[in-house]
Amino acid sequence: MKIIKYPSPSEYQAILTRPVQDMSVIEQRVIPILEKVKKEGDKALFELALQFDKVTLETLEMDASKVEAAAGLLSEELKTAIHAAYQNIYKFHEAQKQAPEKIETTTGVTCWRKSVGIEKVGVYIPGGTAPLFSTVLMLGVPAQIAGCKEVVLCTPSDHPAILYAAKLCGISKIFRVGGAQAVAAMAYGTESIPQVYKIFGPGNQYVTAAKMLVNKEGVAIDMPAGPSEVAVWADNSANPAFVAADLLSQAEHGIDSQVLLVSTSEEIIEAVNQELEKQLAVLPRAEFAAKALENSQAVLVENQDIAIDMLNQYAAEHLIMSVENAEELSEQIFNAGSIFLGNYTPESAGDYASGTNHTLPTNGFAKAYSGVSLDSFVKKITIQKITKEGIQQLGNTIIEMAEAESLRAHANAVRVRLA
Amino acid sequence: MKIIKYPSPSEYQAILTRPVQDMSVIEQRVIPILEKVKKEGDKALFELALQFDKVTLETLEMDASKVEAAAGLLSEELKTAIHAAYQNIYKFHEAQKQAPEKIETTTGVTCWRKSVGIEKVGVYIPGGTAPLFSTVLMLGVPAQIAGCKEVVLCTPSDHPAILYAAKLCGISKIFRVGGAQAVAAMAYGTESIPQVYKIFGPGNQYVTAAKMLVNKEGVAIDMPAGPSEVAVWADNSANPAFVAADLLSQAEHGIDSQVLLVSTSEEIIEAVNQELEKQLAVLPRAEFAAKALENSQAVLVENQDIAIDMLNQYAAEHLIMSVENAEELSEQIFNAGSIFLGNYTPESAGDYASGTNHTLPTNGFAKAYSGVSLDSFVKKITIQKITKEGIQQLGNTIIEMAEAESLRAHANAVRVRLA
Repeated sequence: MKIIKYPSPSEYQAILTRPVQDMSVIEQRVIPILEKVKKEGDKALFELALQFDKVTLETLEMDASKVEAAAGLLSEELKTAIHAAYQNIYKFHEAQKQAPEKIETTTGVTCWRKSVGIEKVGVYIPGGTAPLFSTVLMLGVPAQIAGCKEVVLCTPSDHPAILYAAKLCGISKIFRVGGAQAVAAMAYGTESIPQVYKIFGPGNQYVTAAKMLVNKEGVAIDMPAGPSEVAVWADNSANPAFVAADLLSQAEHGIDSQVLLVSTSEEIIEAVNQELEKQLAVLPRAEFAAKALENSQAVLVENQDIAIDMLNQYAAEHLIMSVENAEELSEQIFNAGSIFLGNYTPESAGDYASGTNHTLPTNGFAKAYSGVSLDSFVKKITIQKITKEGIQQLGNTIIEMAEAESLRAHANAVRVRLA
Repeated sequence: MKIIKYPSPSEYQAILTRPVQDMSVIEQRVIPILEKVKKEGDKALFELALQFDKVTLETLEMDASKVEAAAGLLSEELKTAIHAAYQNIYKFHEAQKQAPEKIETTTGVTCWRKSVGIEKVGVYIPGGTAPLFSTVLMLGVPAQIAGCKEVVLCTPSDHPAILYAAKLCGISKIFRVGGAQAVAAMAYGTESIPQVYKIFGPGNQYVTAAKMLVNKEGVAIDMPAGPSEVAVWADNSANPAFVAADLLSQAEHGIDSQVLLVSTSEEIIEAVNQELEKQLAVLPRAEFAAKALENSQAVLVENQDIAIDMLNQYAAEHLIMSVENAEELSEQIFNAGSIFLGNYTPESAGDYASGTNHTLPTNGFAKAYSGVSLDSFVKKITIQKITKEGIQQLGNTIIEMAEAESLRAHANAVRVRLA
């Protein structure tokens, strides 16, 4: 870990800037895949599975017997854990429901909003060595609470934990399709795979590029994605072993993971560094983590205000505050995806089971984007109802404004009602 | 207006599909503009103002004396109307505030969300004949309630109503920049114009293309945009003159405006058609409206269920329900931007002054997107706080799941805390 001591404000930007990823080369590879799926449908998906994943699929839909068999292939301990996480995620997201509140803005003019689940949503879960069944819960649970009528899951993995989590969330349409072609299939629809209105989920750069491209065509997506990251703010009340473990848990995601440690205490930075080496030595995915740590930084700052300023400028996906009065200080944080307070709140709690969502804005996107929540799966339709008396009250306001905007027919739509 | 009688379900899609807009040619023109502004900053803006708007600007920032003088140039009636609209919009959007609610998902595990205004937002208001000061209110009011620290307004117009509305909303940074270059300036920042994290507002196809392109680079935008549209569902309780006036108020927006009338009553369709001709004859922007009506359709359907099904498939930006039991029937509508109930609720009420927002999803985007609301100007940061007891409770769940996902360091971040 690179240590930077007392940087001047002019140096912050260089310290906090993420590596720029040029997506143009990847986009150029993804565009023909999108076009092929749009034109050829299922046929394209079979061909691309053979070409990219070296798999000859017989059908695109996941074999129902595999879904049924999933429970029997998992340990009781894992099933219990999945259920506990499911319950917490459910509780936290259910509390995000908003009852419609009617507001009478002017006598006889009543306005409200109603939340409606997006009818058709798609969830992408990547394959690879780590079966991300936790992400199935993070996206499947709010979709279930929102009442989305059709939830399509595309994943090249048939890992039983993924299938088990999907079933728990009531997802019945699972397709064995991966990569950019899965995004294309959900965006455009094929003979087998229903078209959806919004696509969620993580993936490699091809998946990310595909999501951004279909988004430009009007298909909604959860949020733009970049490599995962954590910032830890630690003072002398922090436990160096805990901090090191948190940094490593982020770093094990891959060599492009970002880790930032900010502290007013040189002792803590040094103690964390020593702990990092100790813990790294016994970690199975040590090669990833070590590489990620090479790109990571510890910044020693003069005081709390500077730490807060830097953290707001960085806008971390995950922000761990291992500081005294963490909750009080968190009120000054206005850019972050998710905040973890105190010594006993590791990021991995939020990754799996505390109840918060782990689909969060990376790459500084927390400056404008929220993480996934129930909101991500609903639309809010505004409704208004005006009585005959109400339009008498409000009519002149509308007419005056419409005419000032040279929109005479808008004014006339009121006039005919006042007559 | 083209009349279609009793279409079969297989014909719905053809009736309801909007004209496809190929943005690729426009994008190719916009990309060099974005690049020029990114590279040359203010200099590019001065040059492009001369090139596209034939204006030689001395400074980019709006002259403060013009803002001060605005109030004196407006009629008292218009100012009163703007204030009345401001109040209603404020009331409705303020009610959208959500207080943080702490949820204890497991003993010792507390999770909540806090809403924070996006620090820097940009608002674009186009120039042209109609000064869209109503849109300044629709975007400025929720930004003000959200507590956005910096609201940047770019507009080529110096119309006093725009400046007056901006001042009312507390917007102090106004720049005389228009078109795709205004979007670029707010996305990248220039010497004069601050970079923002999210860009709102309507515009022509160049502005729309620019917003989609910077969005692909990670700058948030309000929503994708298309031509404005209204669907009216009318039964025999509807007043044909009111319906015709509503259709015309939509149609006067421009020749690409979309108008759809759905009814179970042939008499109403005919009566509306007669009223359209009558009202069109005395309308100042008749040429636009007449042209827009040529592309518009009245669909006669057999029953309410079919009407509801079609309207949900269409997902109108504005849906006027001039039917008996409108409020009750609106519960079956799940795709729409904003709904207007009954005979005395014209769309123009929502366009200006009822309190709801008029920045709404067009082009069927209401299937996945909400209109602009207070939510659009805030991010929701999740926060979690786990006690020593809490991690004992939740620890095994996290460890079990992390190990099943082969993320050993994630498990270890809990283990060190349980030890």
